[in-house]
Amino acid sequence: MESRYTIGLDFGSNSMRVLIVDVRTGHELASAVQNYPHGSSGIILDPNQPDLARQRPGDYLTCAEEGLKLALEQAAGDPSGEFSPRHVIGIGVDTTGSTPMPIDRHARSLEALPEFAGNPNAMAWLWKDHTGHAEAEEITSLAGEMRPMYLKKIGGRYSSEWFWAKLLRCIRVAPDVAEAMYSWVEIADWIPAMLAGVASADKIRRGVCAAGHKAFYSQEWGGYPDAEFLSALNPRAAAIGGTLPKKAECVSAIAGGLSEEWARKTGLPAGIPIAVGAFDAHLGAVGAGIADGTLVKVMGTSTCDIMVAPIDRKLADIPGLCGIVSESVLPEHYGLEAGQSAVGDLFNWWTNQIQPHGAEEGSHEALTRAAEAIAPGASGLLALDWHNGNRTVLVDQRLTGLIIGLNLYSSPAEIYRSLIEATAMGARVIMERLEEHGVPVKRVINCGGISARNPLAMQIYADVMNRPIAISRSLQTCALGSAIAGAVVAGKANGGYENFESAIAAMTGVQSRVFVPQAKSVEVYEQLYRIYRRLHDAFGLPHRTEDLSDVMKSLLNLRDKARGNV
Amino acid sequence: MESRYTIGLDFGSNSMRVLIVDVRTGHELASAVQNYPHGSSGIILDPNQPDLARQRPGDYLTCAEEGLKLALEQAAGDPSGEFSPRHVIGIGVDTTGSTPMPIDRHARSLEALPEFAGNPNAMAWLWKDHTGHAEAEEITSLAGEMRPMYLKKIGGRYSSEWFWAKLLRCIRVAPDVAEAMYSWVEIADWIPAMLAGVASADKIRRGVCAAGHKAFYSQEWGGYPDAEFLSALNPRAAAIGGTLPKKAECVSAIAGGLSEEWARKTGLPAGIPIAVGAFDAHLGAVGAGIADGTLVKVMGTSTCDIMVAPIDRKLADIPGLCGIVSESVLPEHYGLEAGQSAVGDLFNWWTNQIQPHGAEEGSHEALTRAAEAIAPGASGLLALDWHNGNRTVLVDQRLTGLIIGLNLYSSPAEIYRSLIEATAMGARVIMERLEEHGVPVKRVINCGGISARNPLAMQIYADVMNRPIAISRSLQTCALGSAIAGAVVAGKANGGYENFESAIAAMTGVQSRVFVPQAKSVEVYEQLYRIYRRLHDAFGLPHRTEDLSDVMKSLLNLRDKARGNV
Repeated sequence: MESRYTIGLDFGSNSMRVLIVDVRTGHELASAVQNYPHGSSGIILDPNQPDLARQRPGDYLTCAEEGLKLALEQAAGDPSGEFSPRHVIGIGVDTTGSTPMPIDRHARSLEALPEFAGNPNAMAWLWKDHTGHAEAEEITSLAGEMRPMYLKKIGGRYSSEWFWAKLLRCIRVAPDVAEAMYSWVEIADWIPAMLAGVASADKIRRGVCAAGHKAFYSQEWGGYPDAEFLSALNPRAAAIGGTLPKKAECVSAIAGGLSEEWARKTGLPAGIPIAVGAFDAHLGAVGAGIADGTLVKVMGTSTCDIMVAPIDRKLADIPGLCGIVSESVLPEHYGLEAGQSAVGDLFNWWTNQIQPHGAEEGSHEALTRAAEAIAPGASGLLALDWHNGNRTVLVDQRLTGLIIGLNLYSSPAEIYRSLIEATAMGARVIMERLEEHGVPVKRVINCGGISARNPLAMQIYADVMNRPIAISRSLQTCALGSAIAGAVVAGKANGGYENFESAIAAMTGVQSRVFVPQAKSVEVYEQLYRIYRRLHDAFGLPHRTEDLSDVMKSLLNLRDKARGNV
Repeated sequence: MESRYTIGLDFGSNSMRVLIVDVRTGHELASAVQNYPHGSSGIILDPNQPDLARQRPGDYLTCAEEGLKLALEQAAGDPSGEFSPRHVIGIGVDTTGSTPMPIDRHARSLEALPEFAGNPNAMAWLWKDHTGHAEAEEITSLAGEMRPMYLKKIGGRYSSEWFWAKLLRCIRVAPDVAEAMYSWVEIADWIPAMLAGVASADKIRRGVCAAGHKAFYSQEWGGYPDAEFLSALNPRAAAIGGTLPKKAECVSAIAGGLSEEWARKTGLPAGIPIAVGAFDAHLGAVGAGIADGTLVKVMGTSTCDIMVAPIDRKLADIPGLCGIVSESVLPEHYGLEAGQSAVGDLFNWWTNQIQPHGAEEGSHEALTRAAEAIAPGASGLLALDWHNGNRTVLVDQRLTGLIIGLNLYSSPAEIYRSLIEATAMGARVIMERLEEHGVPVKRVINCGGISARNPLAMQIYADVMNRPIAISRSLQTCALGSAIAGAVVAGKANGGYENFESAIAAMTGVQSRVFVPQAKSVEVYEQLYRIYRRLHDAFGLPHRTEDLSDVMKSLLNLRDKARGNV
C-alpha cells in the first residue's frame, strides 16, 4: 500500500511552520518556516503601550500559502520518492491563543478592508497583548457576582490575555472597529475556515479548546456565556456574543474540506478534511505523546503545561489553573491547561534586549556555556519569572520581574542562569498545584524549542522539579500534533486513524536521553525554592504580610556554602 | 611675595592622585594619576571569595613616588613660570578607609617581607573587603553587652568594613600573619609615616578620623577600646590593640617632616610638614567647602556624606550613622560621616560587568544619553542600591541589590537610570535621618568624579532629594582637601594658613551651574521614594512584616501615568 501523508500548520508568535508527516510512522518529510512579514518579529507594537501586541491576519494566510508551497516542494524531493500531494489525506491547524480578531459577516478580517487597513485594533490581538487588564478585572468581578461557576473552571480569575477581555477592550478603545465587526473569532478557528473557503461568519466552527479555556464555554451551562451576563458586561459584547454557535467542537471534528481555491494554490486535493483548530500547546501535547498522568510542557517563548484526565474521573476545580475543559485536548478526556507567560521570552530578553557584552558574548550559546560552570546557589541570585506577568497559579498579568541578590560582581551568565532557574521554579509551583488537587504527575515530557536546544535548562528543570525530564523526539510537536489531528479527521478508511490514542502511539516518541535529578543540586534548589515561594507569595498574593528581612542573608549563606567558603 | 605651594596625595580605590596647588587661590597647577600596578584595577581579588578585596602596600609608595615626580615635572612647566619645588610648604594625605594593614615593629608592611610576599592576608584590607562580616557581628554583640556606648557613636552596628572586624578576621584566617604582626594600622596613618621616614611602629601618629569612625576611639572613654573589652574579644587582638597610642590626632596635627630619602627621591625640601592622614571623604569635604549646615557628598565608586557641627552644640546619637567623631574633619567640630557602599561602582557594574550591547552602546555616555530621554517613573523599574551592602542607615553589608518592575521590554538605559535613581533615594534616606536628629541640611554640595561628569545623575539627585545641588569647583576635592591640610600644618608664618576656615574660604568654591529640583519630577519621585522606603524597610530591617502585594501594581500604575496611558 502506498504511503499516506498528513499536514500540520502551526502558527506561532513570530512565525508559522508547515510540517508534512508520514501517517504510518510520524516521520517528518518536510518542514517549512515562514516569518510573518509585518511588525517587529511579526508583532505590531506600540512604543507607548508596552502591553500592546497585535498581528495582521493577512500575514497568516500569505505565510500559509508560501509555507505549504515550500514544504510540498521539499517533500517532493524526499529520497523515498514516494511522496505526492495526492496522498495527503488531512490537515490540522494550531495557533497561539487566545488570539481573537474582528471579522465581518462574510468572515473577512476587518483589517483587510480598506477603512481599517493598518489599524492595530482591527488586527488579531496576540495572546500576549495585555491592554485589557482593567477589562479582565471587570469580567472577573462581574462573573464573581453573577456567574461564579464561570470562574471555577479558569482558575478563579479572568485574564487580560483572553477572548472577552480583549473584546471588551476593543469596544472601549475602538468603537469604530466594534461597530463594524460582526463577530470576534479566535485565529485558531478563522484560519481553518479560510482554508475551507468558509464565506459566512455564522458557518465558522469554533474549537472547544479556545472556547473552553478562554471564553467561558462549557456544556455545563449550555455553551458560551448567556446573554444576560454579556449584556450586564456590555451591550455590544452581548450582540457579538450572539453570533457565536451553540456548540464548540473538539479537534476530532472537521472544520471543513480544503477549498478549490486553496487546492489550486497549493496542488493539494480539494476537499481533504481540515480538523477543527486548537491552540499550539494543546496539539503540541498530542505531538509529544500526551496520556493520563503525563505532564507535557510545551516550552517556547512562553510555556504551556498540558495534562489530560479521563472524563469519567471526578476532578475538583483547581485554584489558579487556567482551565479544565472537557475535550479541549483529546475526545473523552478533560484537558487541563496551565502556563508561564514568559520562558523563552525571558531568556531572549537577556540575550536580545540586554545582550551583555554584545552579540557574541551575549548569545544564548556563550551565556549557556558560562552558566553551565556555575553551581546551584553559587550566584547568590534569585529571580521571579514574571516579566510578562504570571499565568499560573496567580493569574495576574499586572506582576513584573524581580532579581534579588545582586552584587558588584554579578555576571551576565549568573543572571542568565537565575532566569532559567526562576522559570523552573515557576514550573514547580504549577506541578505542585496539580498534585495537591488530585492530578498526580507520573511523567514529565518537555517539548518545544527550548527542550531541544537547551540541555542546561532541562537539567535545571529536572533538579528544581526533582523529576526525570523526558524530551519529545519531534522538534515540531505542535505541528506534529496538528498533523495527527489531520490523520484522525481523515479516518482509518482513508489511511488515517480511528482515534488519537492509536495515532499518538504510532506517530510520537521521546528521545533516549532523559534528564535525571542530581541529588546535590536538588538539595540546594529545595532551599532556593522555599525562598522563591516566599517572594512569590509576598509579591503575588493579595494582603499577605511576610517577614523578608532574612532573604538576602539566606541567599548569601547559600552562595557562600555553594562556593565552599563556609 | 613669591607663590607658595602645597601638595595633596589622594589614595583612592583603584589609583592615586598627586595635586599641586597654589596656596593663595587654590589654583591647581598639576595633577598626576597613578594606577596601582597589581591586581584587577589595583585590587587583589579572589574569584572564590567575592567579599575579598586587598591591595599591596608597596603599590602606594611606588605610585606616590612616580606621581610626585610627574606632578612636579608638570608644575615646572606651568605657564606662570613661578613654580619651584622649593616653594612647596606642606603635604597632606588622604586615603580610602577603613583600610588597615599589618606591620612589624619597624613599621614595615608585612607583605614586603619575603615570607609574606603575595599573601593577601598580609596586604592592606581595602575598605570594601567584607570577609569579616561574622566578626563584625561578633564585635557588635560583644560591644552591646560590655560597652554599649561604643555602638552609639557608630550608628548601632559595627561594620565588616572596619578596623577591628578586619583584624579579628585576619587573626582567624591567617594565624601566621597575626603572629608576625606587631601592629595593625590604617594606610591613612602608615603612608604619612613612610613619607616622614618613621621606622618604628610605636612612633606612627594615628588620625582621629580613622580611629574615631572605624575603631571605637573616643576621648569620652579615654581613647581606643580598653584591654578588658579587647581581651574578651580575642587575646591576640588585645595584644595588638596594646600597640595603639593613647591619643589620636586631628588633620591639623603634623605626622612628621618629609624624610631625607623622600626629599632626595622627589626634589622636595626635606622636613616640610606632612599633615596627619585622614580619609578621602573627610578631606574631600574640606576641598569642597564644608561648613556648619552644609552636606558634602563625595561621590565616587561609593559615596561618603560629610557634615560638621560645632563641638559646643549638643548632638544626640544618630541611629545608623557610621559616626559622629570629635575633630574627624575640622578642629573644634564634630565630624559626621554617612555613606553609600556603591554608587559609581553600581553604574560601573552595569556598564563594565554587564555592558549591554557591548562596549560602545553599553558605555556611560551612550546609556546616559538614552536614560535622559526617560521620564521619571516611565520605566516602571525600582532598584535597591545595595549591590555592596548598605552603609547608612542600615549598617549591614549582608544586603544585596534588587531590581523590581522588569518586563520583556525593559531596556539597558531604563535599568541604568533606575540604578542612578536608587542611589539618589539612598542619599535621601541619609539626609532625612540627619534632619530627623537635629542636623538640618541647609546646603548640598556634591563633589567627586560623578558630580563632575554626570549632569543626569545630579538632576536626578536634585529631583529625588528635592534640594538644589551645587557642584564643587575642583574635580579633585579629596586631593585639594589634603593640600589644604598641608597648607594649614605649614602655618601662616610659612605662607600657609592659620586655620581651616580661612584656607577653605581662599582655596575652594562651587560651579556656577546649580541643579534645581523640577516640580513634576519631584512629584513622581515622591511616590517612587515611598515604595523604595517600603522595600528598604522590608528587606533591610529585622523582623519587619510588610504587605508588598501592591508594589508591582503601583509601579505599573506610575509607569502608565508617566507614559500618558491612563
